Amino acid sequence: MPTKSGNVIILQSRPGITGNAAAVGKKEGEGPLKAEFDKIFDDEFIGQKTFEKGETELQKTAVLKALEKSGEQPDNIDLVLAGDLLNQCIGSSFGQRDLGMPYAGLYGACSTMALSLALGGILTDCGAISTAVAATSSHFCSAERQYRYPLEYGGQRTPASQWTVTGAGAAVIKREAENAPRISAVLFGKVFDLGVTDQNNMGAAMAPAAADTVARFLKDTKSKPEDYDIILTGDLGKTGSRLLKDLLIKEHDTDISAVHDDCGLMIFDLKKQDVHSGGSGCGCSASVVCSYVLNRLRKGELNRVLFVGTGALLSPTSALQGESVPGIAHAVLLTSD
Amino acid sequence: MPTKSGNVIILQSRPGITGNAAAVGKKEGEGPLKAEFDKIFDDEFIGQKTFEKGETELQKTAVLKALEKSGEQPDNIDLVLAGDLLNQCIGSSFGQRDLGMPYAGLYGACSTMALSLALGGILTDCGAISTAVAATSSHFCSAERQYRYPLEYGGQRTPASQWTVTGAGAAVIKREAENAPRISAVLFGKVFDLGVTDQNNMGAAMAPAAADTVARFLKDTKSKPEDYDIILTGDLGKTGSRLLKDLLIKEHDTDISAVHDDCGLMIFDLKKQDVHSGGSGCGCSASVVCSYVLNRLRKGELNRVLFVGTGALLSPTSALQGESVPGIAHAVLLTSD
Repeated sequence: MPTKSGNVIILQSRPGITGNAAAVGKKEGEGPLKAEFDKIFDDEFIGQKTFEKGETELQKTAVLKALEKSGEQPDNIDLVLAGDLLNQCIGSSFGQRDLGMPYAGLYGACSTMALSLALGGILTDCGAISTAVAATSSHFCSAERQYRYPLEYGGQRTPASQWTVTGAGAAVIKREAENAPRISAVLFGKVFDLGVTDQNNMGAAMAPAAADTVARFLKDTKSKPEDYDIILTGDLGKTGSRLLKDLLIKEHDTDISAVHDDCGLMIFDLKKQDVHSGGSGCGCSASVVCSYVLNRLRKGELNRVLFVGTGALLSPTSALQGESVPGIAHAVLLTSD
Repeated sequence: MPTKSGNVIILQSRPGITGNAAAVGKKEGEGPLKAEFDKIFDDEFIGQKTFEKGETELQKTAVLKALEKSGEQPDNIDLVLAGDLLNQCIGSSFGQRDLGMPYAGLYGACSTMALSLALGGILTDCGAISTAVAATSSHFCSAERQYRYPLEYGGQRTPASQWTVTGAGAAVIKREAENAPRISAVLFGKVFDLGVTDQNNMGAAMAPAAADTVARFLKDTKSKPEDYDIILTGDLGKTGSRLLKDLLIKEHDTDISAVHDDCGLMIFDLKKQDVHSGGSGCGCSASVVCSYVLNRLRKGELNRVLFVGTGALLSPTSALQGESVPGIAHAVLLTSD
């Protein structure tokens, strides 16, 4: 049953992640984490007729692989918590259609993996459900044409822009688990908007929310950056990561440089892969956390990872109507067994 | 702390709804429930420059009114659970931007009010959080141009089509509450898709999911239709309501006719208001439940309402790609004090 430390929710039973999987596209499969992924699709349509149906297939692949690794059948799952970037979250709901598991749809933009792990952790910890699946996905091609331009247009990308990851991650969460990485604590984020109107600089839009969440988590748990192996942000990229570290020093007198990393910087080789400021998209942190991070926590090579999923809550409509870009960041403390 | 009865989650502390409010548009304010709403806006822009910003304002109005009625300040709220129909749920996230409360975004299409009450009920029951706000909204004009045609086009509506409600509802949920309606049990729905491809017949697309959820709830709690004052579906409308009742008789030998009602049938006068099959949209069940239903539970004029929020999980893109319309239905048992 959860308790509180300030606003941080401490999960007393420390629910375990008994299976995790990541499925990604070709570009991601050529990056530094290529050996970590469960499935790499060379075909950008993932065997489907459209990019959107491809994204659905990608997420379903990750979910089924995570279930297999956990030894679970869909029938045993009490609740899937999933979302994505597509309008009306069709990547998730159409994937769920074929699997027959109870389903709660989430929308946290690129923070969705953290949000789904957070809610899945609490719901299993309190015993409301026994087994949950947290999942999310994004696809470069479906995101690009939805948020920006038709791919055929070949628009020039700005230096601060990030590359939407074609990837999906899924994790099976169980209250009773052995030899599994754990969800130990959760902090829900608030919406921050400092007036960034550049749709191609998501990192800057999300950094203030990430700074607030990291600072509140450290304060409420009376911990310090050095208490974590990694303070891992979702996908701030190069620009946003620098801003986050600056903000934490300036406003909270906290230097996380020694332990900070960012999923958007880990998934691509920024020097070789032409992704400008790094990776982004729901699938970015999902595929990094549900492969590299959870795998290493399982082996005990990492022990405490504060995963701070970051999301930019804009839409093309809000941008066209002159709105700035609100950001949010949810924190999940992942620990080894 | 929650326990289980089959798959139904029983909330032992029965969290209370200490404040509820509904804000609606002019047409809704001319309907049978006009005396129930907290605020009726005659201006379809809700004082803003665009319909989307208007929807944000509408949701914010409902949230602030619910907080006021509950005697809460935003600072005391541990988590807002909210979503809407707009791409990337901007109705909710832009509303939250100004209020500074921790925020978990949901996407359940028109089932969102039930989903947010369900999650808010469990999270407060287990003590992870003390006070939650569940909220959602929809707006006829923002939905119409996003899902269907520009309003200026004046497209002809088919007989089975429903009218998206301009409305928002919000409820403040607290673990410790007196003289308040209660959230007593929750059942999460599964995604059903029987192949309906008519985007203008959402009721038919959602009815199978509603039938499954109602049947499972009754079975798992060993209860009968007559144990409820109302079995209240979200917004199946006339067509979907008939299908639901038929499905329950045919497939589950259960007749709910005597106690069934539907938010889409309650909010408009179908004979006078030219809404064809009835109301729909996230804001439909939100504004009916957060006014009429919760007000009567508070007064003891209703005692047991099984609220089954129904959602059609399509997008314009999925429809254009030839996909059928998946439906989902989440159940929340609302009881008097």
